[in-house]
Amino acid sequence: MQLHQLTATALRAKLAAGETTAEAIVQSCLAHIADREDDIHAWIHLAGDAALTKARALDAGPAKGLLHGIPVAVKDIIDTADMPTAYGSAVYQGHRPPWDASCISFVREAGGVLLGKTVSTEFAYFSPGATANPHNTAHTPGGSSSGSAAAVAAEMVPLAFGSQTAGSVIRPASFCGVVGFKPSRGKHSLAGIKTLADSLDTLGWFARSVPDIALMRSALLGEEQDLGPVSAQPPRIGLCRTAQWGEAEQSSQQAVKAAAETLAAAGAQVRDLDLPALFDDYNASQQRLMNYQVARALAFERINHRTEISEVLRRNCDEGLAVSEADYDAARDHGRAGRHAFAKLIGDVDFLITPSAPGEAPAGLHATGDPVFNRTWTFLDVPALSLPKYSGPKGLPVGVQLVGRFGGDLDLLRWGQWAEDRLR
Amino acid sequence: MQLHQLTATALRAKLAAGETTAEAIVQSCLAHIADREDDIHAWIHLAGDAALTKARALDAGPAKGLLHGIPVAVKDIIDTADMPTAYGSAVYQGHRPPWDASCISFVREAGGVLLGKTVSTEFAYFSPGATANPHNTAHTPGGSSSGSAAAVAAEMVPLAFGSQTAGSVIRPASFCGVVGFKPSRGKHSLAGIKTLADSLDTLGWFARSVPDIALMRSALLGEEQDLGPVSAQPPRIGLCRTAQWGEAEQSSQQAVKAAAETLAAAGAQVRDLDLPALFDDYNASQQRLMNYQVARALAFERINHRTEISEVLRRNCDEGLAVSEADYDAARDHGRAGRHAFAKLIGDVDFLITPSAPGEAPAGLHATGDPVFNRTWTFLDVPALSLPKYSGPKGLPVGVQLVGRFGGDLDLLRWGQWAEDRLR
Repeated sequence: MQLHQLTATALRAKLAAGETTAEAIVQSCLAHIADREDDIHAWIHLAGDAALTKARALDAGPAKGLLHGIPVAVKDIIDTADMPTAYGSAVYQGHRPPWDASCISFVREAGGVLLGKTVSTEFAYFSPGATANPHNTAHTPGGSSSGSAAAVAAEMVPLAFGSQTAGSVIRPASFCGVVGFKPSRGKHSLAGIKTLADSLDTLGWFARSVPDIALMRSALLGEEQDLGPVSAQPPRIGLCRTAQWGEAEQSSQQAVKAAAETLAAAGAQVRDLDLPALFDDYNASQQRLMNYQVARALAFERINHRTEISEVLRRNCDEGLAVSEADYDAARDHGRAGRHAFAKLIGDVDFLITPSAPGEAPAGLHATGDPVFNRTWTFLDVPALSLPKYSGPKGLPVGVQLVGRFGGDLDLLRWGQWAEDRLR
Repeated sequence: MQLHQLTATALRAKLAAGETTAEAIVQSCLAHIADREDDIHAWIHLAGDAALTKARALDAGPAKGLLHGIPVAVKDIIDTADMPTAYGSAVYQGHRPPWDASCISFVREAGGVLLGKTVSTEFAYFSPGATANPHNTAHTPGGSSSGSAAAVAAEMVPLAFGSQTAGSVIRPASFCGVVGFKPSRGKHSLAGIKTLADSLDTLGWFARSVPDIALMRSALLGEEQDLGPVSAQPPRIGLCRTAQWGEAEQSSQQAVKAAAETLAAAGAQVRDLDLPALFDDYNASQQRLMNYQVARALAFERINHRTEISEVLRRNCDEGLAVSEADYDAARDHGRAGRHAFAKLIGDVDFLITPSAPGEAPAGLHATGDPVFNRTWTFLDVPALSLPKYSGPKGLPVGVQLVGRFGGDLDLLRWGQWAEDRLR
């Protein structure tokens, strides 16, 4: 295997053993990006020279941190002081923020090497950029973290930041066949990330293994945490179809069932866990709340740059502006009631298994697919992990989603590794 | 009375009657600012010429919106595209954001005239700027929204934005003898406001009457709401001493008791409402969570501008970095449990009455006072309103705080007007 194909965890081992250098890793990634970028369009800005300079400096110094010498890609809605940050919008082409987002500061402190900025949909909403799915370039990679999911899937980079407000990490992870992680909301700071919806936005990231996801988590927390087992017993798993199960294609339904069977065969106790009626229109409340908040968070762009934003964004903002305060409050109350109810529900199991997305990545680059299987978990603030393994009738990836309890991110990743090992 | 002394509501009536112009209002405010600013130091940037140009344009056109011709001041942690925004820090002197914060866009759309940026403590944390209390310039105006509270108190401007993460609106409102309002968290977008603590930051504002507070709320919501009575019956009021009652000076205890007596005499049912033991160390959890989040939100500045940030901020960040993930999660769980419990508690009354601050503004400009009577309500996400009326042994103002239920901002302002009318 070439260096660019390895996981961050494997690269760390090679670096620690003196078998490679940060410079060689960056060179390998850059060469592979040069090969594939014309087809994938994952990057909006590539910082090759700066990354090589940084890599050489790391090679010349002592081991710096958990991400020493590891290339990292950054969704373009995340501020970087040394790279342009355009938030996926024509409005901000060439904008250079005066700071790094919080997550970027932690990556730099841990010795990570920023390779560049990846394509985001417009302001991380629904209007797509140019990125194609590495498994079939006629299909969407999903969104809004399109470039980050595609870059990791195409083995251009082992780790990449995204963000999720409806389904912008878990869905593209599923479509691109990589591991995607959306932490509990509030676990990691959003400072320096362009606001889309104040009470939903969540930093997330992509990798090609669960240990790599955990490595980034440790870097963001500033403390290394191992992925040892949560308990000596296999997990109790709730198979959760959700009220949207009928909207899942057979490939996604089959993926969930097959994963449940495989994990049951490995000793897990799997039982159906149905969400109560409170959750029947929980997605609708999330959507109403999101539209309301987006129209207000993007007020400046909506008013001052109306011709430079997409028609779909204008329409969504108009919808959001039409939501009354009473309906907004009702959606927020619904959100709170759901979070309270879910905290009890999840108490009976270690995690849920549920679809990551309706099925394979849809054909065409004009849209990024439906977050129907993500809105509820985002609204609940709970951690979610998409694992790749299965595929659909067109041979495209179909992920399965693991969902944990609020704040229980480490436990979910530990069970995620347990599941990943058994699904391989 | 001169124009600069009038409330926004009174100015609107004069404008509607053709008795004055936006230009005359701005001229009056600017002249008064010129008189008093050397003593108060409320402003970090004054945009006199731009405000006059805007006022003349408004005078020449049709009535634009709810804030047509009304001067508004803006705390310097809120982004403005046409004014510098330095976040109260030497790090960002001269910084010009590429956008307006969401709240600024709504003010402009409503025809408000931005007079300039007001002094914030460093990043809206505890290290003070130069602002003095208009009632006695040897005393702090409170913080972090120091300049906004002082500017409204000194009759330089009728309305001013602040923000609250611990007690940065209600405390300076109390110290400066003005009305301060901290809405329910999430009611108004934070987009374009520098993050201090992700899950606590709340936009707020100052005025010299409750109807003016409601006017700004209507402008931010984009819909006019009247302050008619919530019900024909007088309110049920919970007198809430909190676990910190012993930390209140006699002036603040007396203010709460006197207000309760006055409102009871006006027909209100007043009863003691004690918070359960769950809330005994709720302030401590808020503080732990806040320090954790601040250290992460300001990671870029902490790492890259260490010599340009204050020692108190460095120390607070170091404390925040030392908080473990488990302790952070415990604080977050405590927050959620409190919000759930409070939703039930408040159901028996229309609002609480409780101290706004420990007492009069402390002497000296080296610190901004203690948010001990604000942390709990901020952590609960609930709306809070400080009303001026009383004073302490030094003749400085002492406010009383009204607290409502989550989302019930309009009801709280309606009861607030009822109370204001009876306390006058």
